[in-house]
Amino acid sequence: MVKIAVDCFGGDHSPNANVVGAVEALKMHDDLYVVLTGDEQILNNELAALSYDKSRLEIVHAPKVISHDERPTVAIRDPETSMAKAMELVRKNEDVAGLVSLGSTGALLSGAFLKVGRLKNVIRPAFCPIMPTMDGTGVGICDSGANAECTPEQLKQFAIMGSIYLETAYGFESPKVALLNIGTEEDKGDRLRLETFELLKNTECINFVGNMESRNLLTGEFDLIVCDGFSGNVLLKSTEGACLEMLKLFKKVFTSSLKNKIGALFLKKSVMETKEFMDYRNYGGAVMLGTKKIVVKCHGNGVAKTVRNCIDQAYKMSNGGLNERIEAALAEYAPRRAQEE
Amino acid sequence: MVKIAVDCFGGDHSPNANVVGAVEALKMHDDLYVVLTGDEQILNNELAALSYDKSRLEIVHAPKVISHDERPTVAIRDPETSMAKAMELVRKNEDVAGLVSLGSTGALLSGAFLKVGRLKNVIRPAFCPIMPTMDGTGVGICDSGANAECTPEQLKQFAIMGSIYLETAYGFESPKVALLNIGTEEDKGDRLRLETFELLKNTECINFVGNMESRNLLTGEFDLIVCDGFSGNVLLKSTEGACLEMLKLFKKVFTSSLKNKIGALFLKKSVMETKEFMDYRNYGGAVMLGTKKIVVKCHGNGVAKTVRNCIDQAYKMSNGGLNERIEAALAEYAPRRAQEE
Repeated sequence: MVKIAVDCFGGDHSPNANVVGAVEALKMHDDLYVVLTGDEQILNNELAALSYDKSRLEIVHAPKVISHDERPTVAIRDPETSMAKAMELVRKNEDVAGLVSLGSTGALLSGAFLKVGRLKNVIRPAFCPIMPTMDGTGVGICDSGANAECTPEQLKQFAIMGSIYLETAYGFESPKVALLNIGTEEDKGDRLRLETFELLKNTECINFVGNMESRNLLTGEFDLIVCDGFSGNVLLKSTEGACLEMLKLFKKVFTSSLKNKIGALFLKKSVMETKEFMDYRNYGGAVMLGTKKIVVKCHGNGVAKTVRNCIDQAYKMSNGGLNERIEAALAEYAPRRAQEE
Repeated sequence: MVKIAVDCFGGDHSPNANVVGAVEALKMHDDLYVVLTGDEQILNNELAALSYDKSRLEIVHAPKVISHDERPTVAIRDPETSMAKAMELVRKNEDVAGLVSLGSTGALLSGAFLKVGRLKNVIRPAFCPIMPTMDGTGVGICDSGANAECTPEQLKQFAIMGSIYLETAYGFESPKVALLNIGTEEDKGDRLRLETFELLKNTECINFVGNMESRNLLTGEFDLIVCDGFSGNVLLKSTEGACLEMLKLFKKVFTSSLKNKIGALFLKKSVMETKEFMDYRNYGGAVMLGTKKIVVKCHGNGVAKTVRNCIDQAYKMSNGGLNERIEAALAEYAPRRAQEE
C-alpha cells in the first residue's frame, strides 16, 4: 500500500478540488491510500456526495488553514494547520510516503526543510516542475525557485535528481540534461555556469547535452533544464506569462469583429484542444527533489484533475523508488561529501 | 547635423537591409548624416538602385566581415572589418554620434568596451532592448546580457540610465522601474536583490515601483525592468521563445484541417496585424547604455525597417542628449565613485 497525505486546504478551489482529486486518484491505483488533512466536518461534507473505497481513505483533523499573507516560516510552525498536519504525518509515520499540497509555496518549502528534512548527501532540496513542450513530451526545470543562490555542486545534484525523477515518474530514458545559459558555447556565462559545465560534463550518470538558451525551452529538444533557483524561476514564470498573454491576445482577435467571431467558430474545437494542451493544470505539480519523503506542490489554482495528477505523481515516485535511487546516485557521485557527514 | 555610422555587414539580410534602412532613415530626418562601413563596391552596387540625398551619405571602405563563429574579442581587433571600422569612426571622430550594427553581439560588446569606452562614473555599460507589451507601450530590460554578474550599485545605474533612455528615445514620462525578482514582497530574492531593492528605494531620480515577477513582463504594468545580465537574458529570450512557439502552435492549428483553414481565412487580416504587432523587428534594437558614444545592436535578422528604426533611435538619443543626461545623473547619484576617479 502506498500512503499519501493530502493537505486539503490552501488552494483556490479547496477543499473541493482536493477531495474530488483524492477520490479520483484512489480509482487509479488499487494499492493507494490517502490521508486527508483539514477540518473534519467540512471534509466529511465534501466526501458525502462521493463514492469511494472507504477502507483506503482517512481524515486527520486540522482546524486551521495557512493564508498566503502569513509569513511562511512562522505559519508552518502552527501544528493546527492542514499543511503542518500533513507534514507531521509524513515525518512521524514511516508508512506515509509523501504529501501533496496546494497551499503557500513558501510555507511548504519551510516545512519541507524543517520537518521533512534532506536525504543523505543532498546539499539542498530543489523544486522541479514540468512544462508542456510543443512536441508533447514536457521539460523539467530544476531548480525553479527553492534556492535563489546555488553552487556548482548543487546544480550537479539537481541534474542527477531531476534525471532520476524524469525516469521514475515519467518513464524518460536517459533524459537530455541541459544547463541554462546565455549562449550555447562551452565558455559562455558567469563563474557558476563555467564551473557547472565542467562538473556536468564529467558526471557519468547523466546525459548532459551542453548549454541551452531560454528561447529553446519549449521546443522539446531538452528534457531537463538545470539552473539556480533565481534564473529557473525567471525562466518558468516568463514562459508561463508569455504563453498566457499570447492566449489572451488571440482571444481578443477571435472576438474583435463579427467576421473574426465567425472564423473563430470554425476553429473553436482545435483552439480549445490547444488551450487544453498548454494547460499546466493537466501536468501535475512541482515536486521537491532531495527531501526524505515525497513533497508535491500543486498549483494554487489547481482543479480536481490537477490534484489527482499530483497524487498519481507521488504514487509513481514512491513506487519507482525515487528516493532510494537518488540516495544511491548521490552516494556514488558525491563521495567526498558522504565521508564528511 | 547628427552623424551615425552604420556597419553594413553581419546581418542575415546584409548589406541590402542596412543600405535600404539607412536611405529610409535619411528621409525621416533632414539633419541626419550616415556613414556606411563595408566593401565599397558592394555598397555602391546596392546604392545604385536607390535615390537619396548624396550629400548626407558616405561610404568608408572595409573589406572584411566578422563571422559569427569567430571569437568576438579577437574578431573585433581586425581593423579591416566593417564593424571595427564603424567603431573606429565613432572613436576617432568627435562628430560621429554613434553606430548601428547587426553583427555579432559579442564582438559589438567587446568593441564598445575596448574602443568606445565608458561614460564618466559608469561602472559597466549595459544592453537595454525594448519588448512590445500587450497594451502597446513597450518595456525595457536592462541589463539583457552584457554583464552576467552584477553588483547592486550597477543595477542602480541600469535603473537610472534606462529611465533616461526611455524618456529620451521614447518620450516616456517618469517611467515605472521594477526590479526583476522571484516574488513581489520586499524581502524576496537573493542578496543582490535585497541590497538592490534598498538602493532603488532611495534613488530619487527614478520612479521605482518595487519588485516584479517575470510572468508580468508583457502586461504593460512596468516600463523598465532592472536585472543582472544573466537573468535579464533568460527573461528576454524565454519570453521571445514562448511567443514564437505560441505563434507556431496557432499556425499549426490554422492549417490542420479544411475547416480550420476556412476559419483562418476569416481571421487572416487580424492575425497578420497581431503578428506584426508582436514582431520585434518593428521596434528598433537593443541600445548599449553607458558608452561614450551611442551603440545600437540591431537584431541579426533585422530587415530594412528594423535598421531604419535603429538609426532613428540613435538619432533621437543623440538629439535628446542621452549621454549628457546620464553623465549628469550619475555625477549626482554616484558621488563617492566620482570622487574616487
